[in-house]
Amino acid sequence: MQLLKDRIRKDGKIKEGNVLKVDSFLNHQMDVKLFQEIGKEFKRRFEGEEITKILTIEASGIGIACVAAEVFDVPVVFAKKTQTKNIAGDVYTTKVESFTHGRVYDIIVSREFLGKGDKVLLIDDFLANGKALEGLAELVKKSGAELVGAGVVIEKGFQVGGDIIRSKGIHLESLAIVESMDEKTGEVVFRN
Amino acid sequence: MQLLKDRIRKDGKIKEGNVLKVDSFLNHQMDVKLFQEIGKEFKRRFEGEEITKILTIEASGIGIACVAAEVFDVPVVFAKKTQTKNIAGDVYTTKVESFTHGRVYDIIVSREFLGKGDKVLLIDDFLANGKALEGLAELVKKSGAELVGAGVVIEKGFQVGGDIIRSKGIHLESLAIVESMDEKTGEVVFRN
Repeated sequence: MQLLKDRIRKDGKIKEGNVLKVDSFLNHQMDVKLFQEIGKEFKRRFEGEEITKILTIEASGIGIACVAAEVFDVPVVFAKKTQTKNIAGDVYTTKVESFTHGRVYDIIVSREFLGKGDKVLLIDDFLANGKALEGLAELVKKSGAELVGAGVVIEKGFQVGGDIIRSKGIHLESLAIVESMDEKTGEVVFRN
Repeated sequence: MQLLKDRIRKDGKIKEGNVLKVDSFLNHQMDVKLFQEIGKEFKRRFEGEEITKILTIEASGIGIACVAAEVFDVPVVFAKKTQTKNIAGDVYTTKVESFTHGRVYDIIVSREFLGKGDKVLLIDDFLANGKALEGLAELVKKSGAELVGAGVVIEKGFQVGGDIIRSKGIHLESLAIVESMDEKTGEVVFRN
């Protein structure tokens, strides 16, 4: 998606340890006009697929998922990272290792909102080591719903997540795949 | 907002301890069509006000804020609840006590995304004791931005938050104010 690649080149910041900061438009400040274009592009890439629900994970996936859901005309469910007293005990749960936070946490989705008959598209902002998407796919599997595919905004092509997800036979669409980044020159190379 | 009140009566669940569960359409599963109507209603209630940015707090405020931001045609910034290595050290921060989780946490917003010249509308899903909105208002104050007002979807009118926020002279618009709820009969009474 050229608009997105241009925006990453213009506003993305490369930090030590292969961190790509896109928090000026994607995951802290959020450019909802860009999200609308992202939503349309996901719709185009999953054209012909029947999708009844979008599943994402808090927090930075939620905004993108909601704006995309308007294009798909389906509801969103977001997996929560900790158990709160507002969530009933009746949940699907799995463990996810966070690259950003360097720890393991539980993700949960209420059984009420995911189950047989749902055709689910996963949406997230980043794909790096693939742990979050794997966790979401696991929740879909546990629920008996059908996993249609996964759409991510930025894939770090030099990390293993994309390969892992594709090797599971999941239809993965990444709108920008970063092949390499240079912290010193600020150059970002995308996969064609 | 009648559509919202009807939906709360239809799908809201009253639980012990004055908990109103609306997670089938507002803060776990999210009905983005309803969010569009909510966004339009916020726009109507703040008609004539100049707003350049919407500020919300993770996680359940983000979806509503993003869909509303499309109507306002402004970006969203969401305050984060913990410090991660993807956030620069240069942040505004304040402490917030969570009603839902029963603990105190830090909320942060990067200095890059809030500052003098911004005219800010706060948006959140719930207003109960007002701690989250107070925290967001504090971040706006620290940043030197102008606080235009606050829009919340559901106010628990029997808790102190609404009074606290209004007593600070903040223009608060709550789309549904719950005056009382009855766990046994399932009845919800709204303020007129």
